[in-house]
Amino acid sequence: MMTSHLEREIHEQPDAAARLLERESAHVLAIAKAIRQFNPEYVVIAARGTSDNAARYAQYLMGSQIGWTVALAAPSLHTLYKTPPRMGRALVIGISQSGQSEDVRQVIADARSEGAITVSITNDPNSPLAGLASYHLPLHAEKEHAVAATKTYTAELMAMAMLTTAIRDGAGFDGALAHVPAAMRHTLELARPLLEWTPNYGSLSRYAVLGRGFNYATAYEISLKIKELCYVPGEEYSEADFRHGPIAVVQPGFPVIVVNPSGVPYPLLHDLIQKMKDRSADTIVISDSDEAAPLASHFIKTAAVEEWLSPLVCVIPGQMLAMGWAAARGNSLDAPTGLSKVTNTV
Amino acid sequence: MMTSHLEREIHEQPDAAARLLERESAHVLAIAKAIRQFNPEYVVIAARGTSDNAARYAQYLMGSQIGWTVALAAPSLHTLYKTPPRMGRALVIGISQSGQSEDVRQVIADARSEGAITVSITNDPNSPLAGLASYHLPLHAEKEHAVAATKTYTAELMAMAMLTTAIRDGAGFDGALAHVPAAMRHTLELARPLLEWTPNYGSLSRYAVLGRGFNYATAYEISLKIKELCYVPGEEYSEADFRHGPIAVVQPGFPVIVVNPSGVPYPLLHDLIQKMKDRSADTIVISDSDEAAPLASHFIKTAAVEEWLSPLVCVIPGQMLAMGWAAARGNSLDAPTGLSKVTNTV
Repeated sequence: MMTSHLEREIHEQPDAAARLLERESAHVLAIAKAIRQFNPEYVVIAARGTSDNAARYAQYLMGSQIGWTVALAAPSLHTLYKTPPRMGRALVIGISQSGQSEDVRQVIADARSEGAITVSITNDPNSPLAGLASYHLPLHAEKEHAVAATKTYTAELMAMAMLTTAIRDGAGFDGALAHVPAAMRHTLELARPLLEWTPNYGSLSRYAVLGRGFNYATAYEISLKIKELCYVPGEEYSEADFRHGPIAVVQPGFPVIVVNPSGVPYPLLHDLIQKMKDRSADTIVISDSDEAAPLASHFIKTAAVEEWLSPLVCVIPGQMLAMGWAAARGNSLDAPTGLSKVTNTV
Repeated sequence: MMTSHLEREIHEQPDAAARLLERESAHVLAIAKAIRQFNPEYVVIAARGTSDNAARYAQYLMGSQIGWTVALAAPSLHTLYKTPPRMGRALVIGISQSGQSEDVRQVIADARSEGAITVSITNDPNSPLAGLASYHLPLHAEKEHAVAATKTYTAELMAMAMLTTAIRDGAGFDGALAHVPAAMRHTLELARPLLEWTPNYGSLSRYAVLGRGFNYATAYEISLKIKELCYVPGEEYSEADFRHGPIAVVQPGFPVIVVNPSGVPYPLLHDLIQKMKDRSADTIVISDSDEAAPLASHFIKTAAVEEWLSPLVCVIPGQMLAMGWAAARGNSLDAPTGLSKVTNTV
């Protein structure tokens, strides 16, 4: 029995992703057509918090699938310094679950007035951000009650995957997208046993989360969930940045979550998992491949999907981990201390 | 008496910055002229570790001073996925102290073959990266012995400030640059008393560092120094992102370093300092304004410079803090465990 909004919303993710795919197909193709006609030189994405991690995913997705450079906006240039960069030749995307975020709105407003083509992605078609951009893509994730965003995050990833492959192909989506909701559903089942050992982590005081490439975003998002729900400070790194310094913090028993689905960076992260074992770290591995199971303290299996779609699947065990750890600490799952659902920053 | 390379190199920073300003003036003006003629649509910067924080500074600097959008490269797209984004209309800058980093080299190589205008910034004119770009800007910081980069970081910031204002103005640098070395020297003196209380932090186990706008980069860099030297995990945030979730981790006694020089984001961070006091956090404030001194557990005064140049000054107390905390733990200052000076990642 699910007693929290958070747990329910984690489990609603496959349906939310499927619903978005079904309801917005025609609309996304129309938006993609307009973007192809505009033919932008580069892309700017404005987002904060969880949505910023969807932007990180888009950086790898649009880079690899369309060959576009994606810049993450520096909203302060728009809101504080009032010196918006020129974006007249750019596609500018604003992502915000609530559609309220003032800073994201300002980036979109500046971009429109400079002649950019603008798209907003929100879970509220009546929000200010929805009405501000040339095109609005609604997430259809239904109301998210828990303060920590889960189903709106994976819906944002799905929206980016739909939009990107529609821009790439011109006439439709990549067929692989249709398999994602089932893979998410299967992963929810595969990951469930982790709730048996999360109660042992009631005194968790630090951690790191590692990913690379497409799942750099996943590392960030899992880390953000742990911070939001457990109030525990920790770090998220790309495998490469981690080797450049922060690896120094790993001492025996240090919890390291490694997101390593099958794909191009797999061998690099697998090597790092072995290094973590040498340092006697407490290594938690999320992967569709069993290879690392003997090296890990805890191994969490996921369903297999193509690497570029794996962030939609691999984040799920991380969300459950954050939930289980928060429960072990006796924290509120739906209304963490010191947070509110709509954070309005400038 | 300075017994470590690290301490010596921290103190060499004003001279290194002054040397760069003197020796590369004519060269930077020539590079800036070529860039103005190329007239790029946007900027891509490739860097890792400390140099990535110089890239973060450039994002605000070039955005506010020239109106250019700056994207931080996703090197994996070049090295792992072999799907480099199109950059033919971009200015592409590679920053690497050693000039060895394979991933930064690959981004520059791809950019050149696509027709971009490329600049490398290194501390070794004989390094592979130096020879690879259309233009090379040497840092003249002299050999850096300590593994944790300090003088090469502030030299990288100075290089970006010279280049940016030369591109903006066409005929010379901003006169404010000439005052920076003296302000750095003065800050070294003003910050020295912090070494009296850093020994109390021998059991430091977590922290956060906050900045906003130009000093978002400073927050990242101070945090990286603490990780490298103290092996303590912690976090760095923009003031806005911090309010979006991570603020939940702040409990009584939690060390929070706030970088808040006079400037546009000052009131926002000052408000956050008050919130940290309400939560009984252990707040360490770095600022040229005394206003927050009564609210802070420890107040570190810096020399006053214009906000856009303050990252060259405000990072210094953070470097000293990391050094003092590392000494309190009995850690090696010059050769931290698990790190090497040249980290070659792909």
